[in-house]
Amino acid sequence: MRAIQITEFGGPEVLNVTELPDPVAGEGQLLIDVSRAGINYADTHQAENSYLSPSTLPMVPGGEVVGTTADGRRVVALVGSGGYAEKALAPQALAWDVPDGIDDVTALSMVVQGATAWVLLRRSVHMEPGESVVVHAAAGGVGTLAVQLAKAWGAGRVIATASSKEKRELAVELGADVAIDANEPDMKSALITANGGKRVDIVLEMTGGTVTDDSLKALAPFGRLAFYGMASRKPPAPVQPANLMSHSTTIAGMWLAHVFQLPGDIMRQALGDLFALAADGNMRVINGGEYGLTEVRKAHEDMRARRTSGKLILDPSR
Amino acid sequence: MRAIQITEFGGPEVLNVTELPDPVAGEGQLLIDVSRAGINYADTHQAENSYLSPSTLPMVPGGEVVGTTADGRRVVALVGSGGYAEKALAPQALAWDVPDGIDDVTALSMVVQGATAWVLLRRSVHMEPGESVVVHAAAGGVGTLAVQLAKAWGAGRVIATASSKEKRELAVELGADVAIDANEPDMKSALITANGGKRVDIVLEMTGGTVTDDSLKALAPFGRLAFYGMASRKPPAPVQPANLMSHSTTIAGMWLAHVFQLPGDIMRQALGDLFALAADGNMRVINGGEYGLTEVRKAHEDMRARRTSGKLILDPSR
Repeated sequence: MRAIQITEFGGPEVLNVTELPDPVAGEGQLLIDVSRAGINYADTHQAENSYLSPSTLPMVPGGEVVGTTADGRRVVALVGSGGYAEKALAPQALAWDVPDGIDDVTALSMVVQGATAWVLLRRSVHMEPGESVVVHAAAGGVGTLAVQLAKAWGAGRVIATASSKEKRELAVELGADVAIDANEPDMKSALITANGGKRVDIVLEMTGGTVTDDSLKALAPFGRLAFYGMASRKPPAPVQPANLMSHSTTIAGMWLAHVFQLPGDIMRQALGDLFALAADGNMRVINGGEYGLTEVRKAHEDMRARRTSGKLILDPSR
Repeated sequence: MRAIQITEFGGPEVLNVTELPDPVAGEGQLLIDVSRAGINYADTHQAENSYLSPSTLPMVPGGEVVGTTADGRRVVALVGSGGYAEKALAPQALAWDVPDGIDDVTALSMVVQGATAWVLLRRSVHMEPGESVVVHAAAGGVGTLAVQLAKAWGAGRVIATASSKEKRELAVELGADVAIDANEPDMKSALITANGGKRVDIVLEMTGGTVTDDSLKALAPFGRLAFYGMASRKPPAPVQPANLMSHSTTIAGMWLAHVFQLPGDIMRQALGDLFALAADGNMRVINGGEYGLTEVRKAHEDMRARRTSGKLILDPSR
């Protein structure tokens, strides 16, 4: 089969098209004929070995696929690595049936980004109807879905941030009440101004650096900031617990991998909600572009340069 | 009227009995004939001006009273300061009627400590049935109520910490499944061991220093630590948001004063629940001792030395 293989860690230049033997399913595994694979920001960390979980070489990157199993089920699956290929192995417990009427890009958008938005709002910050919600990187994979999900669940004012005029327009089209420049030098004031002069209840933050620091300072009493990524690769300032206490604010870290350790089938619940909203037209995914195997380097370059919006997918047949 | 007045900040030695003119109710205020006043740990901070909100001199300390109004209502009220006196002024919005059958010490136990336990479990950590809950300082004012409330709401294993054998026995009597020494040198391992080898879901922490640091490290994925006090006066280590992310853990600061800024009458809801549980015998308050005005210094000394358990109250008539 054709696949992308990495034999040394690095940037987009380490992503090479290779011919590899087909994988063979072991106990508890499913072999999936990959129709499309998702391309995620996390894959750039995987390729340079800066992800939360360390990578080993050689490696086929790519954590999620949609396709068909030997017995004809159409599933979306989390594969850890190995997704950028014509065939991939998934643990049975991490493959979910895709309902009719949900296309490949929608299925792939929901399994990580949609589930992330769902878990952030439901489990990390416990959003309540009427609350103000800031969505940073609102034109991104998680952001586009978080904006819509917050609105669908009755958020008050949704404040998007994005790095270009086009991305901000997209965020507003998806339901954000206002969209501000991600490069605002004083993000704290910008968020409070965007919220009509009031501090904000919820921030979903995956940028890092001063955006995290300033967003934390913009929280209202009992406000919660969910920290689930560090796209700028700059760590936020350390947080003093006494400071959280004197402002009654919360910071909630979230890494989706931990969801699988929770009791109750959270993923099935999340995907059930998300596919239903998508099927009813209440949530739409943004097709950020489809790339062939030979175009994967460009996909990673575009993502690192923050030029992309919505879901990027890989067609391993070309 | 007789009252305790402070004219310089400091320890228990600055608490002096004085004769003062009766306070006069202004617009929006209630004059309360104080039956009993609560004595709280926060008062020691108020007296030495190390509390979250700064104090001004001269000052009558004491933030909560139970008593009767001019029109015969029996209320429990938050007064900010001025509670250690025969008469006190309360904002009308911060006085709540006390149902028949709820005695003074119960009413005073619920208005700050009970409400704190309620807000911590409901709003700061969103406890779910079956979750493991660590209650530090479990024999204290908040702790004794948090142990019972967690159990009443279906917590799984409740793990108490306390500094003496007697306090640990009290915690177990109130429903804790296990009680461990608050001075365990390796609190992380002690908590995990007490939870049958598993990391814990929830920690209610008001100690500070390494107890906070180690408790944070004992959290399971999606675990939450609520930080609502720093009785040791030692700040915990600063927290790296990236570290919270890689463990999917949350730290939630909480200061009860902020509850009054929340929409919805949270206090009325909390006191309603708490008085109902107390009336039904499902939650009991621990009478930690009653002091006269001339004994207030001793009360503060006992609290600072962590010799007390449960609710301390002041009888301003003696």
